[in-house]
Amino acid sequence: MDEYLNNNVAYAAAFGGPLALPPARKLAVVACMDARLNIFGILGLKEGDAHIIRNAGGAVTEDAIRSVVISQRLLGTRRIMLIHHTDCGMQTFKDDEFKAEIEADTRIRPPWAPEAFTDLEDDVRQSIRRIEADPFVPYKHSIRGFVFDVETGKLNEVSYVS
Amino acid sequence: MDEYLNNNVAYAAAFGGPLALPPARKLAVVACMDARLNIFGILGLKEGDAHIIRNAGGAVTEDAIRSVVISQRLLGTRRIMLIHHTDCGMQTFKDDEFKAEIEADTRIRPPWAPEAFTDLEDDVRQSIRRIEADPFVPYKHSIRGFVFDVETGKLNEVSYVS
Repeated sequence: MDEYLNNNVAYAAAFGGPLALPPARKLAVVACMDARLNIFGILGLKEGDAHIIRNAGGAVTEDAIRSVVISQRLLGTRRIMLIHHTDCGMQTFKDDEFKAEIEADTRIRPPWAPEAFTDLEDDVRQSIRRIEADPFVPYKHSIRGFVFDVETGKLNEVSYVS
Repeated sequence: MDEYLNNNVAYAAAFGGPLALPPARKLAVVACMDARLNIFGILGLKEGDAHIIRNAGGAVTEDAIRSVVISQRLLGTRRIMLIHHTDCGMQTFKDDEFKAEIEADTRIRPPWAPEAFTDLEDDVRQSIRRIEADPFVPYKHSIRGFVFDVETGKLNEVSYVS
């Protein structure tokens, strides 16, 4: 980690100074935590543009909803972009197997769903539907879902009809 | 959003091709969703280095735990870095007030905690404690917490004794 702290010295030396708290582009991105996804790079974002919410799978969990609700209600974002990606780790296991492995190791079964999935585009649509169904997210008119291709660096939009 | 899709064309044109799924540096970062936090930039990360988990506040919620558990058990990460930041939106409200506002607007009270906090460093320590207390996270020997200064671009480590 110390290497990263050294990198941070260089970043701070070139840092442009304080920006406003609310995202300038009124955008919230919900994406997978995958190490190959450089969201600023993929979208050409600059510091201050957009909220970035990330978790295993880019799943719209209760916590992702919490973040989107705070993003929209307190900090003015209006658009949501969902980003899944090819070769996702969430496609390599099944929830029940993973929970059983954890229980075998710790003797405690996790009370949460791991959120593995099989079909990438279906899971993007599932994520959009969860936002649409949520009673606390006020702005749902602009939600778009994408799959990032880890071989080409391209974002491909997922077709969706609500 | 179309501007971002145009940006992605340039990103893909310079894209280095596929990398391995497991994070090369065995690191998982848990950070706030704040628009001013460019995690790749702040740490000098490259594509493929580290899992990035982000939500409102960089809180160690059940979903952040889910992501860390998948990161460690299935994808081999061993170190955790927590990043909060100065001028955080989570310091601008109280959970009870925010929930009451949402209930007044939607007539439904959210069943989740918004996770507002007052003291930044205390909340970093709170986050570390939650990981340490979790029964499902296997590797807890290397957890470090930081506050990113949005005025200077610098990461400052939070002292912590478990």
